[in-house]
Amino acid sequence: MLKRVFGLPLQLTSKRTLSTIFYQRMSEQATTNPATPAADVPVQQHKQKPGKGKKSKLQVSLKTPKGTKDWSETDMVIREAIFTTLSNLFKRHGGQTIDTPVFELREILAGKYGEDSKLIYNLEDQGGELTSLRYDLTVPFARFVAMNNIQNIKRYHIAKVYRRDQPAMTKGRMREFYQCDFDVAGAYESMVPDSEILDIIVEGLTSLGIHDFKIKLNHRKILDGIFQVSGVSDEDVRKISSAVDKLDKSPWEAVKKEIVVDKGQTEETADKIGEYVKLNGSLREVYGVLSKDPTICANEKASEGLSEMENLMKYTEAFGIDNFISFDLSLARGLDYYTGLIYEAVTSASAAPENAAELKKKSKSSEDASEYVGVGSIAAGGRYDNLVNMFAQASGKKSGSQIPCVGISFGVERIFSLIKQRMTSADIKPIYTQVFVMAFGGGKDWTGYLPERMKVAKQLWDAGIETEYVYKSKANPRKQFEAAEKSGAPLAVILGKEEYAEGKLRIKRLGPEFADDDGELVDANEFVAIVQDKLSQVHEDGVNEVSRLIRGL
Amino acid sequence: MLKRVFGLPLQLTSKRTLSTIFYQRMSEQATTNPATPAADVPVQQHKQKPGKGKKSKLQVSLKTPKGTKDWSETDMVIREAIFTTLSNLFKRHGGQTIDTPVFELREILAGKYGEDSKLIYNLEDQGGELTSLRYDLTVPFARFVAMNNIQNIKRYHIAKVYRRDQPAMTKGRMREFYQCDFDVAGAYESMVPDSEILDIIVEGLTSLGIHDFKIKLNHRKILDGIFQVSGVSDEDVRKISSAVDKLDKSPWEAVKKEIVVDKGQTEETADKIGEYVKLNGSLREVYGVLSKDPTICANEKASEGLSEMENLMKYTEAFGIDNFISFDLSLARGLDYYTGLIYEAVTSASAAPENAAELKKKSKSSEDASEYVGVGSIAAGGRYDNLVNMFAQASGKKSGSQIPCVGISFGVERIFSLIKQRMTSADIKPIYTQVFVMAFGGGKDWTGYLPERMKVAKQLWDAGIETEYVYKSKANPRKQFEAAEKSGAPLAVILGKEEYAEGKLRIKRLGPEFADDDGELVDANEFVAIVQDKLSQVHEDGVNEVSRLIRGL
Repeated sequence: MLKRVFGLPLQLTSKRTLSTIFYQRMSEQATTNPATPAADVPVQQHKQKPGKGKKSKLQVSLKTPKGTKDWSETDMVIREAIFTTLSNLFKRHGGQTIDTPVFELREILAGKYGEDSKLIYNLEDQGGELTSLRYDLTVPFARFVAMNNIQNIKRYHIAKVYRRDQPAMTKGRMREFYQCDFDVAGAYESMVPDSEILDIIVEGLTSLGIHDFKIKLNHRKILDGIFQVSGVSDEDVRKISSAVDKLDKSPWEAVKKEIVVDKGQTEETADKIGEYVKLNGSLREVYGVLSKDPTICANEKASEGLSEMENLMKYTEAFGIDNFISFDLSLARGLDYYTGLIYEAVTSASAAPENAAELKKKSKSSEDASEYVGVGSIAAGGRYDNLVNMFAQASGKKSGSQIPCVGISFGVERIFSLIKQRMTSADIKPIYTQVFVMAFGGGKDWTGYLPERMKVAKQLWDAGIETEYVYKSKANPRKQFEAAEKSGAPLAVILGKEEYAEGKLRIKRLGPEFADDDGELVDANEFVAIVQDKLSQVHEDGVNEVSRLIRGL
Repeated sequence: MLKRVFGLPLQLTSKRTLSTIFYQRMSEQATTNPATPAADVPVQQHKQKPGKGKKSKLQVSLKTPKGTKDWSETDMVIREAIFTTLSNLFKRHGGQTIDTPVFELREILAGKYGEDSKLIYNLEDQGGELTSLRYDLTVPFARFVAMNNIQNIKRYHIAKVYRRDQPAMTKGRMREFYQCDFDVAGAYESMVPDSEILDIIVEGLTSLGIHDFKIKLNHRKILDGIFQVSGVSDEDVRKISSAVDKLDKSPWEAVKKEIVVDKGQTEETADKIGEYVKLNGSLREVYGVLSKDPTICANEKASEGLSEMENLMKYTEAFGIDNFISFDLSLARGLDYYTGLIYEAVTSASAAPENAAELKKKSKSSEDASEYVGVGSIAAGGRYDNLVNMFAQASGKKSGSQIPCVGISFGVERIFSLIKQRMTSADIKPIYTQVFVMAFGGGKDWTGYLPERMKVAKQLWDAGIETEYVYKSKANPRKQFEAAEKSGAPLAVILGKEEYAEGKLRIKRLGPEFADDDGELVDANEFVAIVQDKLSQVHEDGVNEVSRLIRGL
């Protein structure tokens, strides 16, 4: 099978232009056939900027909803290559894939997202159940595990999620966006699956050509312990946590104010928290500091967390990924359901511009925040040991054993925006055409060989070869060469008026370097095998531009 | 790269069971390590039926919304193989893919679906734009073409669409379902792209192992001409058309009653329509009858349609697909936007059971219609020449040239239900694990080699090889073999306590036929290349069960 041999997507490096010399020679025997331009080029899009005329009242807005966009052409090729890279990564780690509905019963999503619950899209009540679009893939996964009484699974899921947030389109922050999730559910030894998840982040990002990232990591038990020893009461822990979570965007002074003024803690408590959350460094460094802190060690929760971090160090060193990790006590993560390790991968593009506040004031767009925000984290996740159980209990199932979970979500649009930045070549084509079938002839009795071209194309399709021809009874050679050039096909199969009548087809390489080449006249009964052979040769030398781009080569 | 060599998904035919003999030999030197069962088997799901206890008032329903379902395990493997087969088909025909948002502005969908508009899901008005979930991929495509002033494109799109219809889950009729669409936009010669679309239906279904189908085909211009010559006024044509569309489910008498009683036509008009719409047969047969009918030939619309059908015959014969086509004048298709050729592919499973009405009365489920409906059409489409223009005009764009379109939509869930029926082997696994890393040892100083197993696994992952190990510090050999067996991995890499300390790893084939085989002791510095070599050998003999199933072999 051709597809197997070459892999997908196929891309060639050489620029192809009209094979003028060959064309001239062939057209000497052909009559010119005037054609409408649009009708002659089946493949290439001709785009113009949409008109910007004023709208009348009855007009329809020809746009996608706020925070969403269409994907097409090269962008689709790149995004699909990212999906393939990540699926292969997940399969390498024993993952199986599932697919859940885009909307869930509203009660399934309720109470899982803290302050962000207001960003959930609801479906209209049209009679029947109340439903909402999924906000992430984690809660539907936990619902799936609980619903099917699954005891353990490694699952991956690549799908769209929905958040009614302020979009920043060019930074890849959208209202409809893809998440690529890998999660391990099941009761295992401390930090064993967790460390594999961290390895998956490193493998995933490096295989996408991203090397200048770090994984900021913290442990909810340690963080909660810090809050406790600083004087925060148990019922206030989650809200203080969500205040601390803002430290990546706001300075400590603003967060402190929120803790004291809005969240009612004492100045002293806030200052103690401030001392701890500014700690960050390598796992060994921060672990070293905390494990010598008697207050922390005396706190039950923090001490549990610390002993888990000891295991984690051992495993991340075995994987050789400890150099990517920054133990950062200011990382809190907004979502309610995390119970253990939490982490976010960030790059230099993740942060907002230094003068973000100023840019925000200046910004003319109330619709899009791209001017004053960063890309944000490009992968994020954590451990959530109670979510499955919460569903099982809420649904009245006999409380079985707890199903602890840990996982990671890659933000594809954000990663896409980084990959797109390093794209220099424009030679990635969205179509894969390998052969363009043409017919040349002339004279009064010249039919244009359309049904004959169809027969030839059909034989190539049946052999699995990507094939096109011009959708026209009689097309002149120039139009056919132009269409072939635009398709990017490396090979032409030509039906010459007399040659084809004698059972012969001409196979010719396309591209300027083959302009002088008349191609090869072959028996029409054997041409498919010869085409396959020639395509193998073409792709032996070819370079896959998409892989090159994705891997950052 | 391993992935390139073997292709995906990898499946093996041989059943693997615990390598008991080898296990016994290895365990003689190993201490037994009691383990909780759940903690020891990282891959396989243990499923139980969900509990059926009574619910209290506060309970959450642990289910997916009506008409939707989760997809997992083998079903996902099969569905993804269908997607791959169809994507390759579309690429073979010069298609490029696009992706549009799951929801569109409500005004974009308005007035496109006739009576079916009531089935559209609306999103709640949460401030901002009014939006609805897409009902098909055709209207969003036309919006995309109009919005970007595209003059021509062949695009494919594989994505979910939403309809608030009565579900029949086991027949693949759902509220959330996939469509796989291929459409050609652009002004081309009559019936040239249309005939390629018909060829795509034939290629698509046969490549999915479906051979007992026919393509029912009609032409809106001929149908409208028939209505005109039967005495239907122009403004009544569309509503009579949607009555005739019910002929695949209802007998003529019921449809006639609707035409006369509900739609206000005379008895005579209905009878004339009845004479025509019972005509069906091969393209040549029905064309022969109509082209000799002076009333039809005198009607401008019908005559236009007939001359197009003449071209179509020529092209479908060139493709050699005319034997799949039935020219059926009762086919009307419900949607408003079709303007020319319309078609539906059906199989024997498409029709409802003969005693459908009786079964419907007996049916205990008001939620699901599976007992009394058929699978319906498995692919359907047509020509829609005005839709893009309608968007361009409604949005106030200068009316450019019309962008005629023609396309096809494959119904994946319905095709899936046919493929699932012919599945006999249970040997399609949802995971792709190739190597299971194990450690064997014993004695008081035995650590279990967990970080060492991680190091070994990491080297295999970096080489692109799907690898797992048991998530446990010390796992006894039996548990490790059981986990390996469940993963389906054909190869084990074993860290023997003494052997590994001496820089050696053991590579062993898994499966009952290799129970006597101790494997090969190799240098730990060279083991990755040896594993790759052994896997090539394994897959040389292996048969891909998924391809076999999909292609109906």
